[in-house]
Amino acid sequence: MLTYLFTDIGSDSLYHHLYQCIKKDILSGELSAGTKLPSKRSFAKNLGVSNITVENAYAQLQAEGYIYSIPKKGFYVREISDLIPSVQNTQADFAESETPHTQYVADFVSNRIHPEQFPFSVWSKLLRETLLNRHEELLESPPWGGILELRRAISNHLKEFRNMEVSAEQIIIGAGTEYLYGLLIQLLGRDKIYAVENPGYHKIAKIYESNGVKRCFIPVDREGMDVGKLEESGSHVAHISPAHHFPTGAVTPIGKRYELLGWATRSSGRYIIEDDYDSEFRLAGKPIPTLQGIDRSERVIYMNTFTKTLASTIRISYMALPCHLLKEFEKRLSFYSCTVSNFEQYALARFVEEGYFEKHINRMRTHYRRVRDELMASIRKSPLASCCKITEEDAGLHFLLHVDTRLSDEELLRRAEQSGIRLSSLAEYYCKPALDIPVHTFVINYSGLSVQKIPKVVKMLIKCILC
Amino acid sequence: MLTYLFTDIGSDSLYHHLYQCIKKDILSGELSAGTKLPSKRSFAKNLGVSNITVENAYAQLQAEGYIYSIPKKGFYVREISDLIPSVQNTQADFAESETPHTQYVADFVSNRIHPEQFPFSVWSKLLRETLLNRHEELLESPPWGGILELRRAISNHLKEFRNMEVSAEQIIIGAGTEYLYGLLIQLLGRDKIYAVENPGYHKIAKIYESNGVKRCFIPVDREGMDVGKLEESGSHVAHISPAHHFPTGAVTPIGKRYELLGWATRSSGRYIIEDDYDSEFRLAGKPIPTLQGIDRSERVIYMNTFTKTLASTIRISYMALPCHLLKEFEKRLSFYSCTVSNFEQYALARFVEEGYFEKHINRMRTHYRRVRDELMASIRKSPLASCCKITEEDAGLHFLLHVDTRLSDEELLRRAEQSGIRLSSLAEYYCKPALDIPVHTFVINYSGLSVQKIPKVVKMLIKCILC
Repeated sequence: MLTYLFTDIGSDSLYHHLYQCIKKDILSGELSAGTKLPSKRSFAKNLGVSNITVENAYAQLQAEGYIYSIPKKGFYVREISDLIPSVQNTQADFAESETPHTQYVADFVSNRIHPEQFPFSVWSKLLRETLLNRHEELLESPPWGGILELRRAISNHLKEFRNMEVSAEQIIIGAGTEYLYGLLIQLLGRDKIYAVENPGYHKIAKIYESNGVKRCFIPVDREGMDVGKLEESGSHVAHISPAHHFPTGAVTPIGKRYELLGWATRSSGRYIIEDDYDSEFRLAGKPIPTLQGIDRSERVIYMNTFTKTLASTIRISYMALPCHLLKEFEKRLSFYSCTVSNFEQYALARFVEEGYFEKHINRMRTHYRRVRDELMASIRKSPLASCCKITEEDAGLHFLLHVDTRLSDEELLRRAEQSGIRLSSLAEYYCKPALDIPVHTFVINYSGLSVQKIPKVVKMLIKCILC
Repeated sequence: MLTYLFTDIGSDSLYHHLYQCIKKDILSGELSAGTKLPSKRSFAKNLGVSNITVENAYAQLQAEGYIYSIPKKGFYVREISDLIPSVQNTQADFAESETPHTQYVADFVSNRIHPEQFPFSVWSKLLRETLLNRHEELLESPPWGGILELRRAISNHLKEFRNMEVSAEQIIIGAGTEYLYGLLIQLLGRDKIYAVENPGYHKIAKIYESNGVKRCFIPVDREGMDVGKLEESGSHVAHISPAHHFPTGAVTPIGKRYELLGWATRSSGRYIIEDDYDSEFRLAGKPIPTLQGIDRSERVIYMNTFTKTLASTIRISYMALPCHLLKEFEKRLSFYSCTVSNFEQYALARFVEEGYFEKHINRMRTHYRRVRDELMASIRKSPLASCCKITEEDAGLHFLLHVDTRLSDEELLRRAEQSGIRLSSLAEYYCKPALDIPVHTFVINYSGLSVQKIPKVVKMLIKCILC
């Protein structure tokens, strides 16, 4: 009779050891298809284990399909070995694919917030209280649009600070705007053409590409997207950031806004995605009123995110849909579960509702204004003054540095990289071919810079540009 | 000269009030295009406010595009009024679109976890410590695949509990499997045909539909997906749950698993998405080994989620990609930011690493086993015994109740609904037309049921079925 040793099985259970032994023999062919296994009782007796041990091992083998039972006859080995595909050695020469990023002295490309600026204690308190007091609600599946409390808080915030009339129900919460763009493609249609800004965030165009929909690049001038070119392009959806275009910093003036709305209403099925990603950080004057706020024809989908305002590692964004699109969304896409955990939604709801968000924004504006002012002053007082010009400095979190130099952009970027400064040129944000791509213009995103570092960084810039 | 009253402005700032007044007059046409506005100084004097007030108001109007300046001449009203599209009254008769869900006495459809089962104190402690000790890391953008610590913890967990060899780098974290399916479509291609199980979770088919890719339904028998039909269908990707098919409870035996792998290796570009969504809750024996674990040809994409095991409101799932697909992902899709907040990723990493997850799973298995056993015993001891049969009770969190009755399924479901029991029939999970759709079979997902409620619920079932 079949027998196995039960020595050296370590912490393994008896039944599992037996299961492993039999499985191995089946896979190796030692126990061939059709072989009848010993009856549980006699096998147990033979092995010196309990009936239950054999029973459990057989049950597991049966559940996994290695053996089968014929009632009143016993257990048999199944036909499997010739099904095992021959092993192809395709295990790739797989190296660590994500190298940790370089530590820069200054990173003028990424958005970053320093620990001393994040409201850890408040956030911690709110999360703690949420976890303590809302056990029931935390485990309740949220509505597809997200926790109503958060959506109400956002609706109130939009009313108070952006003068927008958006009901809580119109707001849909998602784990980042990138995710929401994907939902919008499903909502608005894959047969549509999506117009994106040129220059602009490459990521937005990439998302449309990756989702397999047509997108076209429309030039952006100092007033935002060119409406004539937009009309010519045959696009159905315009994805724009009228409050503050990245990277040029262009603010779309009211006249142009009405022109854009005019474009959207001229033909049915046209929409504008208004990406209001950093309007809170306009450093001079009040935030620019939204396109959504002046839209009377339900053509504007408003999007914003807490990822920019709070921390890039908090993945909570939202969009406000016009009512007819909301109905469409409910009909076709509400089967998707909300992608943000309840915990964070409840904590954020209180953060917004109880005024912490506003306080945080104000504190950050003051901080960013100070960084910007000191950086600009430092540049203007330095030898760079003679060859550099700064523009678009009122828009949020970055300005443009125009350099009068004989160095190529590539050379300048290489020098910066070498000395530990991460920099990008305005030209990089253009999709080629494009007309009038500016040279010698660099995008200075100062959100990650600390005031203390400014003298050092300006010295390094001088070295890169003037030496 | 233009003049405005500064009484009754409440808490509004002077400059903002002035800005509002001028804007209103521009929009109404009172101030027509081309009109020159008063010089800042004289206007300020006339209004009895400071120069700064006028300056700020003009700056805001200029930023928004209502006025423009000609250097050394002054400020002029822009041409905008005729651009304003006529107001269409399309504001929909918008009612509250998300009605709160009915309170059921028993819900045999949704997955739910009761507050006493969620490890609030541990989770709270881990979140608190994370927030206290990891300020720097919390604000650092995570790698595109997610926080490495979490991926390492998952890799170890998979090795220990599922006997899988998956490196941390192969694991990609996302906010729910639904989101990850969307990424997989982008990775594997929109030109592919995706095979889904019939019967099965409607949501999976819906996601493929909504993403505009072809999907076909392949029948599932007691051993899982029909490989012959899969081959015939011309599909490229098979989306299956071999450990535990929903809703039939079928476990794919090892022979069939090799057949499926054989299918995948027979032609290039074929893949299997192995959805292992509740394998942890197999209540008898050990979890069934994964397809991924026996795949030597890099054809299996493994997916699992903490949404089922921890709480449906914690949106953290993951997939393990074969190495060659990981490279492809990095090349084409790593521009996407990870959709789960750092906070939760760090907390979950410790939860898994420090054994809390295992403990939680064990506790939940004990709990679910008890609910299942008591519910089944209660049914078997009741008058239902004569007309009901229970099958597939070992698989996680649900069993099938076959009812011998002359009532139609619809009538039975209606009665249940009326008495406060949410129930679904097995037939509902079929995509029609399909052969052999079972009738009088109901899916009893008992995850949300408390032991205390069982006698009451069984009484109600008796009333629905026997009266």
